[in-house]
Amino acid sequence: MRATVIHGPNDIRIEQVPDAVVQRPTDAVVRVVSACICGSDLWAYRGVAARVPGQRIGHEFLGIVEEVGAEVTGFARGDFVVAPFVWSDGTCDHCREGLHTSCPQGGFWGEVGSDGGQGEAVRVPFADGTLVGLPKEAAGEEKLLPALLALSDVMSTGHHAAVTAGVRPGSTVAVVGDGAVGLCGVLAAQRLGAGRIIALGRHEARTAIARTFGATDVVAERGADAVEAVKALTGGQGAHAVLEAVGTEESMRTAISIARDGGAVGYVGVPHGGPAGVDIAQMFDRNVSLRGGVAPARAYIPELLPDVLSGAIDPGLVFDRTVGLDGVPEGYRAMDERTALKVRIAF
Amino acid sequence: MRATVIHGPNDIRIEQVPDAVVQRPTDAVVRVVSACICGSDLWAYRGVAARVPGQRIGHEFLGIVEEVGAEVTGFARGDFVVAPFVWSDGTCDHCREGLHTSCPQGGFWGEVGSDGGQGEAVRVPFADGTLVGLPKEAAGEEKLLPALLALSDVMSTGHHAAVTAGVRPGSTVAVVGDGAVGLCGVLAAQRLGAGRIIALGRHEARTAIARTFGATDVVAERGADAVEAVKALTGGQGAHAVLEAVGTEESMRTAISIARDGGAVGYVGVPHGGPAGVDIAQMFDRNVSLRGGVAPARAYIPELLPDVLSGAIDPGLVFDRTVGLDGVPEGYRAMDERTALKVRIAF
Repeated sequence: MRATVIHGPNDIRIEQVPDAVVQRPTDAVVRVVSACICGSDLWAYRGVAARVPGQRIGHEFLGIVEEVGAEVTGFARGDFVVAPFVWSDGTCDHCREGLHTSCPQGGFWGEVGSDGGQGEAVRVPFADGTLVGLPKEAAGEEKLLPALLALSDVMSTGHHAAVTAGVRPGSTVAVVGDGAVGLCGVLAAQRLGAGRIIALGRHEARTAIARTFGATDVVAERGADAVEAVKALTGGQGAHAVLEAVGTEESMRTAISIARDGGAVGYVGVPHGGPAGVDIAQMFDRNVSLRGGVAPARAYIPELLPDVLSGAIDPGLVFDRTVGLDGVPEGYRAMDERTALKVRIAF
Repeated sequence: MRATVIHGPNDIRIEQVPDAVVQRPTDAVVRVVSACICGSDLWAYRGVAARVPGQRIGHEFLGIVEEVGAEVTGFARGDFVVAPFVWSDGTCDHCREGLHTSCPQGGFWGEVGSDGGQGEAVRVPFADGTLVGLPKEAAGEEKLLPALLALSDVMSTGHHAAVTAGVRPGSTVAVVGDGAVGLCGVLAAQRLGAGRIIALGRHEARTAIARTFGATDVVAERGADAVEAVKALTGGQGAHAVLEAVGTEESMRTAISIARDGGAVGYVGVPHGGPAGVDIAQMFDRNVSLRGGVAPARAYIPELLPDVLSGAIDPGLVFDRTVGLDGVPEGYRAMDERTALKVRIAF
C-alpha cells in the first residue's frame, strides 16, 4: 500500500509501505476513505517536534473496516468508522472514565511501528476500544465526510477546550488562535450556548469562518493590544472562558490575561516553549484556572456525532483544500505557508 | 491603641498607633478579641515580600463591633464577628458571585493606610460586605475561639484548595505542605468526604495533627522521592485531587507530578518563584488542571461556620502557642524557626 512518510524537516514523501494487516486479535484494518493534515503535523514538518526518519504521519482518518481480528466484536468488514487521534483499549480505568488519551495501552497514529492516518489503510489496535461507528449511508454523502473527519481531532479538540474552559449557556468566551482547532473551539462554544464569542485572529478568511461558527466579535490585535481589546469588549472584566488553541508562550500569556477573575483557560494548543507564558502570580491573584490538555476525542465523538449528522454543526468548513494522496507533500507546504487552512485527503 | 508594626526584615514591633475610628459611613470598628500570625506573614518578616517600613501587619482576627458608620445595617455595637483576610464591598459582580477577593473596592488588612489584624482594634471598610456575624454566646467559649479564628484564613484557604482541586466523596487526595493551611486542607478534604488523604510532610508534630484531621497516609519524602511514594500508595496513578499549600517551585512540581491523569491541583500557597515549577507539557499530556488562588474566605465562612460551631471540625488545633500582644515579635521568631506551627494572639 502507499502512505505518507516523513524523512526529516520539509521532507514528506508518498511511499510504498507494507500492507496494513491484522497482527493481534483485537486489531482491525481500516481502508482510509478520507484523512487530513493537522496543524500539529507542522511541528514535525518544521523539525520542531522530533521524528525518526521514515516514520509514518497523520492521525485523523475515517474509512471502511476491511478486516477484523478474532476478538473484535463491535465491528465487521464493511463498517464505516472514524478514528480518534489516539487509540485506546477501552477497558482501563482511564478509558472507562472518559480520558482515553491516558490509556496505558494507548498510542498515537504514526508513532514508530504504527501506521499513520495519511495512508491507504491503517492497522487499528484495540479496534473495539478505539473506533467509533458511523451510519453506513453517511459514507456515500460526500458533503458530510469533511465534518465527520473533523471529529477525529479538530472538532473534538475544540470541544475539549470549550468544556475545560467551562463554557456554559450565556458565557462570554474568547478563543485564542484562528487555526482549525481555534475555529472548532468557536463552534463548540456556540454549541454549548455561549452568549458572546470573541475570536482572536487576523487572517480574514479564517475569521470569516469564525463568524460563520458563531463568533460575535473579532480581535485582530496580538499581545498586550489584544488583551486591551478584549478587556474593552467586556467592560474591563475579560472572558469567563478562554480557549487557547496555539501553544506558544505568547498565546498562553494572552489567554491568561484575558480570562475574567475566577474564569478558566482551556488550553489545547500543544505546548511549545515551556511554562514561561504561565503567569502563576496573576493566576493566583485572580483565581484563573488552567485546564485542558490532549483531547479525549474518543469520549467526545459519540456526543458530537448526532449534531454533525443532523447538520446542526458543520466543522467540515475548516477544510479549504482537498488533495489526493500524491498531493499530500504539497498540502504540507500550503499549510506551512498558510495558503491553506486545513487540507483534506480524499482517497 | 497598640498594634503590630513591621519596620523591615526581622523587625516586628508593638507600637502606639492612632485609634481605629469610623472614617466612612460604611465602616465599622472592631475591637479585636483574638488574632494570629500567618505563614504568609513570614514572607514579609523574612524580607521576601516587600513592605513599607511602618506598615501594619496581620490579616486574621475576630472581635466585637465597637462602632458602626451611619450606613452599616447588618451589624451593631456589641456584635461578635470574624473578618475574612480581605475586605470587600459585598455588592460588586465578583462579590455576588462569591469571588470576594476580586472585589475592585477590596483590600488586604495591613496594606498601607489600613489597620492590620494584629492590633487592639481594626477599622473595617464595607463592614456589611466584609464581616461575618458569629453567635454572641460563642464569644465566651474560650475553646471555640481558635477554631472560629481559623475561619478568617487558614481553614477557608484549605477549603479553597480542596474545592478547587475537586475533592469529592471517595476521592484520593494528596496534600503538599504541613503548615497550618496544608493541615486545614486535610481537614477540608475529610469534611468533603475524601476516601483517602495522603499528607506530605516530615514534621512529626504536624503530621500527627494531619492524622487527627483525617490523613490516612503520611509521606515524609520530598521531591522525586515523594512522587514515587505517592505513586506507590496509589497503584501508580497518583491522587485525583492535590492540594498545594506551600507556593515554591519544588512544591508545585511535586503537586503536578502526583496528580492522577485528569486530576487537578488546587494551589493556595502564595506563589514564590515564578512558573518554573509548572510543567506545562506534563500537564498537557495528562490533562492535569491547575486551579485555586487566593481564597474567597468571605464566601466560605458561612458554609464552614455551622460545622465549627457544632464541633464537627476543629481547625483550631493548628494553633500550638498563644501569646499576648507583647508576645507577637517572639511569635514571629518562633514560627520562622519552626518551633511553633501557628501562633494565636489573645487580647
